[in-house]
Amino acid sequence: MSEPKRLRPIDSSVVPRDADVATFLRAQRTDDLELVEVGLLGVPLDAAAFKGGTRGGPAAVREASRAIRAFNPKTNLSPFEQAEIGDVGDVPVNILDYARSMGLIAEFVAGLRRAEVNPVTVGGDHSVTLGVLRGMAADRPLGVLQFDSHADIQDVFFGTKDSNASVMRRATEEGLIDPSRVVQIGLRGTRFAGSGDVDWGRDAGFTVIEFDDYEEMGRAAAIETILRVLGRGPTYITYDIDGLDPKEAPGTPAREPGGLSMRDSQVILRSIYDLDVVGADVCEVAPALDPVGLTATNAANLLFELTCLVANTRSKGR
Amino acid sequence: MSEPKRLRPIDSSVVPRDADVATFLRAQRTDDLELVEVGLLGVPLDAAAFKGGTRGGPAAVREASRAIRAFNPKTNLSPFEQAEIGDVGDVPVNILDYARSMGLIAEFVAGLRRAEVNPVTVGGDHSVTLGVLRGMAADRPLGVLQFDSHADIQDVFFGTKDSNASVMRRATEEGLIDPSRVVQIGLRGTRFAGSGDVDWGRDAGFTVIEFDDYEEMGRAAAIETILRVLGRGPTYITYDIDGLDPKEAPGTPAREPGGLSMRDSQVILRSIYDLDVVGADVCEVAPALDPVGLTATNAANLLFELTCLVANTRSKGR
Amino acid sequence: MSEPKRLRPIDSSVVPRDADVATFLRAQRTDDLELVEVGLLGVPLDAAAFKGGTRGGPAAVREASRAIRAFNPKTNLSPFEQAEIGDVGDVPVNILDYARSMGLIAEFVAGLRRAEVNPVTVGGDHSVTLGVLRGMAADRPLGVLQFDSHADIQDVFFGTKDSNASVMRRATEEGLIDPSRVVQIGLRGTRFAGSGDVDWGRDAGFTVIEFDDYEEMGRAAAIETILRVLGRGPTYITYDIDGLDPKEAPGTPAREPGGLSMRDSQVILRSIYDLDVVGADVCEVAPALDPVGLTATNAANLLFELTCLVANTRSKGR
Amino acid sequence: MSEPKRLRPIDSSVVPRDADVATFLRAQRTDDLELVEVGLLGVPLDAAAFKGGTRGGPAAVREASRAIRAFNPKTNLSPFEQAEIGDVGDVPVNILDYARSMGLIAEFVAGLRRAEVNPVTVGGDHSVTLGVLRGMAADRPLGVLQFDSHADIQDVFFGTKDSNASVMRRATEEGLIDPSRVVQIGLRGTRFAGSGDVDWGRDAGFTVIEFDDYEEMGRAAAIETILRVLGRGPTYITYDIDGLDPKEAPGTPAREPGGLSMRDSQVILRSIYDLDVVGADVCEVAPALDPVGLTATNAANLLFELTCLVANTRSKGR
Amino acid sequence: MSEPKRLRPIDSSVVPRDADVATFLRAQRTDDLELVEVGLLGVPLDAAAFKGGTRGGPAAVREASRAIRAFNPKTNLSPFEQAEIGDVGDVPVNILDYARSMGLIAEFVAGLRRAEVNPVTVGGDHSVTLGVLRGMAADRPLGVLQFDSHADIQDVFFGTKDSNASVMRRATEEGLIDPSRVVQIGLRGTRFAGSGDVDWGRDAGFTVIEFDDYEEMGRAAAIETILRVLGRGPTYITYDIDGLDPKEAPGTPAREPGGLSMRDSQVILRSIYDLDVVGADVCEVAPALDPVGLTATNAANLLFELTCLVANTRSKGR
Amino acid sequence: MSEPKRLRPIDSSVVPRDADVATFLRAQRTDDLELVEVGLLGVPLDAAAFKGGTRGGPAAVREASRAIRAFNPKTNLSPFEQAEIGDVGDVPVNILDYARSMGLIAEFVAGLRRAEVNPVTVGGDHSVTLGVLRGMAADRPLGVLQFDSHADIQDVFFGTKDSNASVMRRATEEGLIDPSRVVQIGLRGTRFAGSGDVDWGRDAGFTVIEFDDYEEMGRAAAIETILRVLGRGPTYITYDIDGLDPKEAPGTPAREPGGLSMRDSQVILRSIYDLDVVGADVCEVAPALDPVGLTATNAANLLFELTCLVANTRSKGR
Repeated sequence: MSEPKRLRPIDSSVVPRDADVATFLRAQRTDDLELVEVGLLGVPLDAAAFKGGTRGGPAAVREASRAIRAFNPKTNLSPFEQAEIGDVGDVPVNILDYARSMGLIAEFVAGLRRAEVNPVTVGGDHSVTLGVLRGMAADRPLGVLQFDSHADIQDVFFGTKDSNASVMRRATEEGLIDPSRVVQIGLRGTRFAGSGDVDWGRDAGFTVIEFDDYEEMGRAAAIETILRVLGRGPTYITYDIDGLDPKEAPGTPAREPGGLSMRDSQVILRSIYDLDVVGADVCEVAPALDPVGLTATNAANLLFELTCLVANTRSKGR
Repeated sequence: MSEPKRLRPIDSSVVPRDADVATFLRAQRTDDLELVEVGLLGVPLDAAAFKGGTRGGPAAVREASRAIRAFNPKTNLSPFEQAEIGDVGDVPVNILDYARSMGLIAEFVAGLRRAEVNPVTVGGDHSVTLGVLRGMAADRPLGVLQFDSHADIQDVFFGTKDSNASVMRRATEEGLIDPSRVVQIGLRGTRFAGSGDVDWGRDAGFTVIEFDDYEEMGRAAAIETILRVLGRGPTYITYDIDGLDPKEAPGTPAREPGGLSMRDSQVILRSIYDLDVVGADVCEVAPALDPVGLTATNAANLLFELTCLVANTRSKGR
Repeated sequence: MSEPKRLRPIDSSVVPRDADVATFLRAQRTDDLELVEVGLLGVPLDAAAFKGGTRGGPAAVREASRAIRAFNPKTNLSPFEQAEIGDVGDVPVNILDYARSMGLIAEFVAGLRRAEVNPVTVGGDHSVTLGVLRGMAADRPLGVLQFDSHADIQDVFFGTKDSNASVMRRATEEGLIDPSRVVQIGLRGTRFAGSGDVDWGRDAGFTVIEFDDYEEMGRAAAIETILRVLGRGPTYITYDIDGLDPKEAPGTPAREPGGLSMRDSQVILRSIYDLDVVGADVCEVAPALDPVGLTATNAANLLFELTCLVANTRSKGR
Repeated sequence: MSEPKRLRPIDSSVVPRDADVATFLRAQRTDDLELVEVGLLGVPLDAAAFKGGTRGGPAAVREASRAIRAFNPKTNLSPFEQAEIGDVGDVPVNILDYARSMGLIAEFVAGLRRAEVNPVTVGGDHSVTLGVLRGMAADRPLGVLQFDSHADIQDVFFGTKDSNASVMRRATEEGLIDPSRVVQIGLRGTRFAGSGDVDWGRDAGFTVIEFDDYEEMGRAAAIETILRVLGRGPTYITYDIDGLDPKEAPGTPAREPGGLSMRDSQVILRSIYDLDVVGADVCEVAPALDPVGLTATNAANLLFELTCLVANTRSKGR
Repeated sequence: MSEPKRLRPIDSSVVPRDADVATFLRAQRTDDLELVEVGLLGVPLDAAAFKGGTRGGPAAVREASRAIRAFNPKTNLSPFEQAEIGDVGDVPVNILDYARSMGLIAEFVAGLRRAEVNPVTVGGDHSVTLGVLRGMAADRPLGVLQFDSHADIQDVFFGTKDSNASVMRRATEEGLIDPSRVVQIGLRGTRFAGSGDVDWGRDAGFTVIEFDDYEEMGRAAAIETILRVLGRGPTYITYDIDGLDPKEAPGTPAREPGGLSMRDSQVILRSIYDLDVVGADVCEVAPALDPVGLTATNAANLLFELTCLVANTRSKGR
Repeated sequence: MSEPKRLRPIDSSVVPRDADVATFLRAQRTDDLELVEVGLLGVPLDAAAFKGGTRGGPAAVREASRAIRAFNPKTNLSPFEQAEIGDVGDVPVNILDYARSMGLIAEFVAGLRRAEVNPVTVGGDHSVTLGVLRGMAADRPLGVLQFDSHADIQDVFFGTKDSNASVMRRATEEGLIDPSRVVQIGLRGTRFAGSGDVDWGRDAGFTVIEFDDYEEMGRAAAIETILRVLGRGPTYITYDIDGLDPKEAPGTPAREPGGLSMRDSQVILRSIYDLDVVGADVCEVAPALDPVGLTATNAANLLFELTCLVANTRSKGR
């Protein structure tokens, strides 16, 4: 680690965590992208085909992240010591015009790319990821680690090609991601059409770890698989909060019981610092569906882990 | 009253109100429009520009309407004795395609019109009303009684011409309603642009009873104004649930304190049986925003009053 | 006022209101009826025909009554200075055996009567009142002031003669109450059978102030009517919490919008100290239906007003 | 699999899952038993001795089952392809008369039996199971697989012989079930009388897998035990939702921490297709105790697994 | 009105109200006091003697104020056109050290005074007001308009002289306020010691409008009294949210039924633009006690009205 | 076991668990310490530095403990058969004066000690433990088994030496506990200062089982470690409810995902009857943060396990 960073989070030993405006991880809210290496942003999109409410995700995660302290218990380092981290605000999406909103996300993230800011995003529904990947327009297709209960590989959903049910298929077709460097983990739940809900990705080259597989192989083997498949290239992590068991994330439109735990997620995310994680997101938090606020608490903790990974990559000069 | 109707609600003295499938007012769920004179339908649309959640309205109102008994305490008559009333299901709107959804609503209501069924609709956000009015395509422009905290006369909202903020303007421009036979009641709340949020309608000929006016003139004078302005022509009633004070309807995206009470609404609605009410709706119920369920309870009671009015009109042979 | 009473509530300026076991109005919990003049009791019965949950009423009202201070803002006196007041516990009703439970209530209250304790009861559904009246077995039929949205005069309800829908009819038929000294106030709501839901009482001699009547006559005239009809004989007050508008009492099985306010209730109850109130109850609080807890708060405040009235009667030596 | 079935669930790729009347698993609501092979029914009974609220179970599970898709992720088959499945409505129980309600359940299920419909029931408290077993009146005593935290073998509970605490004892005594073919799994929790809360069943021949046993033997051995004990005869599965750990099912009257997970349940239920499951139920869902709605979500998923098992049995021509 | 202000709120017709960091009224968050004329600040103090939770007030009101538009429906002007308004953050109070926290509030507000910034504060419990008044240290004692259910004139409360129960007494004794220019409105609720809960203020010269008085005199007379008593000197307005009836503000530690409505409050606050309002606050919002969020919604609307008044005073050059 | 005890809990087979005043584990509420061997007490303190609400812990746990039956499923014995157990009320702490409150706790517990009553306490925030340990003033320093996600070894927190973040450090420094006989289990979560959040205790001699360690070593090894380190001397057990994963205890100020389960806790606590447990507590329950009430349910179950351990120690004559 080098000299102290200019962007520091609010010091919770001086300003109590209840106090002041809520930002992601208590980072400074700034529009000056020159100052920023890792940009935390929100996308209050709400286009899920069932229940909805994900537009409230960014606000709820900002509030819940008041509780997050600055140091990771595994590395005993703070991401704020590894990179300049700022809360760069939200993409001003338009609920009435889904197609335009997808464009706005891509534009916003493209602006971050031009300023050499790595994005860590809080959705919004999972179609947010597609907009972000379009905006990142990486030099080469990205590898993807996807935590999810659904494969999101529908071709068309309710007559629409862009949706939270089609993200991984569109991103593959558009060459944004490299299917041989995709790992999906946690898939489960009742299906629209049997194995058809999963097969496309497997056929395209995705490494698919359904929850049944995960339980059978064990956590260590799963980590090994992730490290092997994603290897040294640039990697993007997308965490659909419904990848968690609903007892840990009830505040999401498509609850699928029998899934991953926060513990699983923490251990996996803390075991892959060898990857070059260039961007990440947490999606599908719908706070109104969870009056207890557990979903936002867990999403805030995942946001922290993801930010640690991206800050770590950045500190390596990549 | 004439011979008994074929369509009867579930008898709550035999089947307890907790039991069986929830339909609007415990009416029979039927797709056979030949049997129906007054059709209760839902439109789970969710295009509000803030917060959202209105797609859950129809389901929540069906559940809450388990509590509604069949007789009106004013007339001591049951709408089920005045007309054949059925729950005709929901319009299968598409959350990902707002424009198409507006078309689907109009088509569905047009189908009712062809079968000579009068629609009583539960939204969905307030743009539902525009779709319904397009589908009704009445022989002559309808008069409208609008309970609301907002005038809904924005020209363009978030770049879109059809939205819940523009319903009354579009309906006027399209000749669906007769501005000289429009009464808006309950308007209030902070504004985007001062009196500009209300003026267009007033200029177009609407009779505008802001909440300040209502309080000053009193309930009796308001009723008199409604009866006078709407007179003998066909009338449509739209009840945006945010017309109620948020203490009676917190489950709605745009809460505006200082508004109408259920008591005000009940007395007004029970005092206008001289009108020819050919259709009606209750909109903007977002159940996830109200864990107490008061909003759905009140919406179900309003649905009952509106159904009584439409059934009464129907029983007069109009 | 005479010498200090032996039974004192917990002093909230010493023991904070969050602290210690919750009793009704922070009165002492005692089984020694010799010490008691006014006995506060609970009846966790749950036999309502819709939704239910009223068995939780006594516990919730005890908790909520932590907030009640000892002095009435109208008289500036404390009921604890006017009478020996104790929390005498709950009737051990049997949810699986409704008929037996009704007997248990009557037995428990008969025990209070033998010890010359005036009962103030927290239900439980409204059939609790019938059990209490049977137990009181007053020398002469009692007058009754009933706050309610329903008349509770069904002959048979779901095949049963004793139920919360039949209380006032049974009590009249059994000679427990004097129909010429009954005032029902606040009646409203959709009906099972038109005016049949109300007529029996009116025909039997009840003075019925439907909510429409109340609004028309005004609060002062209503108070005058109550005082006139109930006059000098022994009076019982029963407050079905659904007499309140659901915005003030959503936690009850049968919400009926458009009703009485707490303000109405407080003013009325504070204006009838000339009556000889020998017993009272608050019923139909179902706390699980109101996560905000407003219903229990308001029920606790009503319990306080009722206790003031009974203590006042007792202090007059009656 | 044979020709397409006549009864199809609502197609969620056409009618969004928010839309239209809620039925169990989106099956068609029908009273025409001739059409039905597997009948989904509700029993809104509420006779539990503590807290209650289970009468709301069927309505909540219908709502939550909007989220269930038609295909099982293990078999990649849909139960709707294996059998004619209909929502046959609710038993019209009488909350005021527990004994009569028990009779009504038995009668309703007897009607299904006469029409050769296999019942899959949603309670209601666990005494529902006793009514169902009486109605099924199978040619020979049924085997039972019971997921539960309590053994339900009390002789008398609150002076009553039929109750949710006595189901398994009564069913054994009445010869409805074969104690040598009973497996109880998940038992745990504080007790009324030490091992007396469990011993009767063990003595009668039940195979009892307390949660301690389950953890020690492991899931695979438990499945093996279930398959071995229940073998080839007709089997009934009853799932008391309090068998789940309360973190997965807080909405139930008797929460017992330290229990089964949904994952455990899913794997077990997906591993016993060799059994002949002729009927099943999920009981003790009390939605008002769980504002997050997780309990109903999980119950709906269990309902799906149980329906798959019964439909599979039916497809085998048994 | 003069040239456009530099500080503008987020434009809700461009950035949706769900998006970006939540500030009070969507004002800009700034620490540069040179830019600011009216400073919106939070004080997350939590020293109430019952229940507590008021430390969460500022965060919840910031979130709820996303819904507030920039124009007042009475004046059709925006406070943002009348003054430079900024969100200046929160006082970093110390929950473990009440005395020190009181000092920190006074220091923070003194800093605003030195920068000629008028404070509009969101509490925190009502003792916040005492800290603010100490910090304002006006040239002459301020007049005070207090909306409240309690007089807050206890000498000592739980052994402490500074508390939310003693604010008005301490402020008077310290010469911070002019008792002849104090109006208390809305007082009601059960009392610790009869009229002793109110008398001290009345004796000191306060004009006390108990809720009973308010109802009797009517709203217009109350406004007239306020204008007359407060007259032309500098005035501070403190709004204890428990001045509202709990049906409009359940999220507060000391609910007192039978109180003011939002409508009352809005009309009063919109009728006193002749006063010179130099500072204001809203206190006692405890969001965890109100899962519906109505309290925060209403507090945000009151914050808007108060900000309008202070901005209006500022625009007059005072 | 010897003759029956005089203090018996309410018999739930006679008085339903909904009925009567709520006490800890339905024990008798008594101030007569002569009767008591194990005293259950509450401390409604609320000094946590974030969110707060723990003052509501004792009331919520009393309510939730209605559900606890009297027999432990492991021993099949009841603590009420092993010791005289009473609910001895709450310490009357003063929210406005933290230092004084700490003294009040110590005084109250010292009173218990003089009467030879072993305390089992329900907090309140975790600083309660420090007050209790001071009051116990054991002859020799106690061993401590601490379930927690935080080590609570900060020297100074927000400028204060006594706080919930410093309990274990102060207790060590004051000689109240023996650092060589301390086991901390479950530590995890983001940190203020890296390993500095844990090191002090480890350096002082604590045996620290972070959650990572626990998972690696397994439950059996952890139990072995606990038994070995704590050995035969007097032991105190403190259970900070945030030691549980937030999915099992969301109602606490500092949720740390990825933690202990109730099952873990039950098995551990049921495996250490060889220890001499002379006192215990459960802290940090903040019921308003958990509208589902799961936290209180689990805390009540932990209270039962802890009471069993202390009663068992007492029955051994120690």
